[in-house]
Amino acid sequence: MTIGIYGLGRFGQFWGSLLAKTPARILGYNRSPRAVISSIELVSLEELGRCDCVFLCTAISSMPQVCMTLAPYLAPETLIFDTCSVKIYPTKVMAEKIPLSNPILPLHPMFGPDSANQPDLPLVMCPDPRNNPRSTKLFAAWQQTFTNLGLRVLPMTPEEHDQEAARTQGITHFIGRILGELDLHPSPIGTLGYRKIFEVREQTCNDPWQLFLDLQRYNPYTKSLRAEMDVAFRKLMGTLETLTDDSGE
Amino acid sequence: MTIGIYGLGRFGQFWGSLLAKTPARILGYNRSPRAVISSIELVSLEELGRCDCVFLCTAISSMPQVCMTLAPYLAPETLIFDTCSVKIYPTKVMAEKIPLSNPILPLHPMFGPDSANQPDLPLVMCPDPRNNPRSTKLFAAWQQTFTNLGLRVLPMTPEEHDQEAARTQGITHFIGRILGELDLHPSPIGTLGYRKIFEVREQTCNDPWQLFLDLQRYNPYTKSLRAEMDVAFRKLMGTLETLTDDSGE
Repeated sequence: MTIGIYGLGRFGQFWGSLLAKTPARILGYNRSPRAVISSIELVSLEELGRCDCVFLCTAISSMPQVCMTLAPYLAPETLIFDTCSVKIYPTKVMAEKIPLSNPILPLHPMFGPDSANQPDLPLVMCPDPRNNPRSTKLFAAWQQTFTNLGLRVLPMTPEEHDQEAARTQGITHFIGRILGELDLHPSPIGTLGYRKIFEVREQTCNDPWQLFLDLQRYNPYTKSLRAEMDVAFRKLMGTLETLTDDSGE
Repeated sequence: MTIGIYGLGRFGQFWGSLLAKTPARILGYNRSPRAVISSIELVSLEELGRCDCVFLCTAISSMPQVCMTLAPYLAPETLIFDTCSVKIYPTKVMAEKIPLSNPILPLHPMFGPDSANQPDLPLVMCPDPRNNPRSTKLFAAWQQTFTNLGLRVLPMTPEEHDQEAARTQGITHFIGRILGELDLHPSPIGTLGYRKIFEVREQTCNDPWQLFLDLQRYNPYTKSLRAEMDVAFRKLMGTLETLTDDSGE
């Protein structure tokens, strides 16, 4: 069995290192040359397309281009996973641009390089949008593989995922990026709560800026959540402005 | 040795239960009658004033009233601690309203009932603002007592405390209260980061609303931090508004 990774950025290499715990050979491709960890074997696009399955580990916004680039090299039965942090949009792109013979399983590992040392990490897996006859069997087999890797597989539709992810991952990245704009630092008098928000700041700001933008742009449910945040923020600021300043009393 | 607690709200009772681990008798007073934990003995204001020391566990904004109420009942050498989450303002109030013979040690335990099951909890202790001749000795003795209780004592001036607390505790409560305005819930696909911000939301919103307002109102350094937050928030919202909505592409 061969597993291909398309895109060897921070997440792609992390994901490859995790899959290297299976007995499969891990082959990787990156558009531009780059150093990769030893558990991933660098290959050409031709070789990548012949893997039993390929995980797309690229930016959400690059999905159309990536699918079009890869499509001509795909063996007829290669299983395609994406790993995007939104699901409606990439599922639609893959359904359009990947050859019809290839099964597709949209995937979202709800963790990254900075949050992987935890038990029971959730991973969302969506049904094949085109109902390839092989997909049900592949879904079950991969559910088992991921479970063996210590992950908790959550079957979900892309719509369910995006709705839930906007209120969880979306809001977390938004808060983390606001905190990233402030001059904060670890403090000897940091409360437990402060240590938590400081960790969120470090973790989210360590992810690519493109991921943040794409999370907000390609998830149709983040927009209304940002509007809710805006209302909450203004309400709180308004309440505090009405307080008289007694600090110097 | 007798330790008095003035104010038996959520924090006062928690603080009393912690001090009950010392060999001292814990006496408590509350303005209005209320049920208290068994380790605290309810007493009158007269009896409270005769304790070896009294911890004021009341709202920041009530400090002038509390000091004026307690002052007539204080034995000449009773040591006064406050436990407010800001330090400049209550230190000034105590220095003005507590009889000159009583030593004062401004205190801020940087934790509460919801964050106490942690090792090495920080506790800020400030010097006596009036340099009572007994205070140096009392400071050292209490530093040892708190250390024996597993706390990490951080000697600091009120100014140093408030400056640092605005950027740590102040920002944490502000973020927690914004999150409290949103309809969030624990989620099966919650990332590690989401779980952290959700915990911060629960923990800060579990504290009294008055504490939140007082933290923002009586710490002279929170105002500029809120202004920074406002800039960061608007900058981020502005960036996201310029993105075209490709979610339905």
